[in-house]
Amino acid sequence: MAFSPALTGLIDALRVLPGVGAKSAQRMAFHVLQREREGGRYLARSLEQALACIQHCRDCRMFTENELCDICANERRDPALVCVVESPADVMAIEQNTDFRGRYFVLLGRLSPIDGIGPAELGLDILRERLSRGLVTEVILATGATVEGEATAQYVADLARQHNAGVSRIAHGVPVGGELEYVDAGTLSQAFSGRRPI
Amino acid sequence: MAFSPALTGLIDALRVLPGVGAKSAQRMAFHVLQREREGGRYLARSLEQALACIQHCRDCRMFTENELCDICANERRDPALVCVVESPADVMAIEQNTDFRGRYFVLLGRLSPIDGIGPAELGLDILRERLSRGLVTEVILATGATVEGEATAQYVADLARQHNAGVSRIAHGVPVGGELEYVDAGTLSQAFSGRRPI
Repeated sequence: MAFSPALTGLIDALRVLPGVGAKSAQRMAFHVLQREREGGRYLARSLEQALACIQHCRDCRMFTENELCDICANERRDPALVCVVESPADVMAIEQNTDFRGRYFVLLGRLSPIDGIGPAELGLDILRERLSRGLVTEVILATGATVEGEATAQYVADLARQHNAGVSRIAHGVPVGGELEYVDAGTLSQAFSGRRPI
Repeated sequence: MAFSPALTGLIDALRVLPGVGAKSAQRMAFHVLQREREGGRYLARSLEQALACIQHCRDCRMFTENELCDICANERRDPALVCVVESPADVMAIEQNTDFRGRYFVLLGRLSPIDGIGPAELGLDILRERLSRGLVTEVILATGATVEGEATAQYVADLARQHNAGVSRIAHGVPVGGELEYVDAGTLSQAFSGRRPI
């Protein structure tokens, strides 16, 4: 005996979501059917709507319903500064916590040849096109402090230099409020080699 | 700056799923938009279809597209034995791992007055109706071994006795393959008080 076809289908479909395995999918399906039918309909509608209208911003690859995202469409954001990040979530984090007033470029990933993710998959031809307009004076690299993130930063830095743009990398070191003894070895070593005169 | 309305809506809607908070919802939304658009459409369709056609079995409250679930509609399943469980997942577990050939009754929860879950919410009027037909000779209580599960079992046992049906509770004790020293105190104490002559 197995679940009915519609229920089996729903459990199977929920596994599309990242981090959801067979057990969680089953729990989610039961929860929606039992207690959240209205919420389930809302989710189905939201998914359909988002998939129908959300695309990538023409200039920065951020998710948006329009041709340009709110930031690229905002004349008051400085087009001379471009911050390169891995994901849309990084844009949100920077917007909420810094006073950066330039623009962004969202890679939607990082270089990972083993997974078939090369410069084309990261939309670097779009960034090259933007750089070639000659307006960008500084590219700020804010990719993750991982091996792939560093490799990606290196690649983008070379690209920026080819177009005579300045390149900077956000600082890596001891987190603010962090106790030295609890900081991991890589971060501490980075903090020492990256020390600056004050 | 915030995410675009459709993206905000999708992230909000994903939080309907149990165990999904703001961060996971964001990660799921990005994953679907970036890498699983076809899967996302499949999920939206499956949800809509499941919500439109899945209801509860008239006799046992299992999820089904039909008036009766496959088990209740199966003439070869013994209507004299009724196994009472808390969730549809329990039915699947029993079907897959035992040779039980009777029928089920799915409570879809357990008694929990503090959450407003009483006998009516567990569909016990449906079970009473089934018992009153006089065909049931044994009610097997397979609710969880928790305080609420035991209280629920007690309530259902009383109901069954009122209709002159026999009542049994599935055995609780040391799990098969379990080492005594790693078994928790409650289970070991249960295993001792529930010892049987061999």
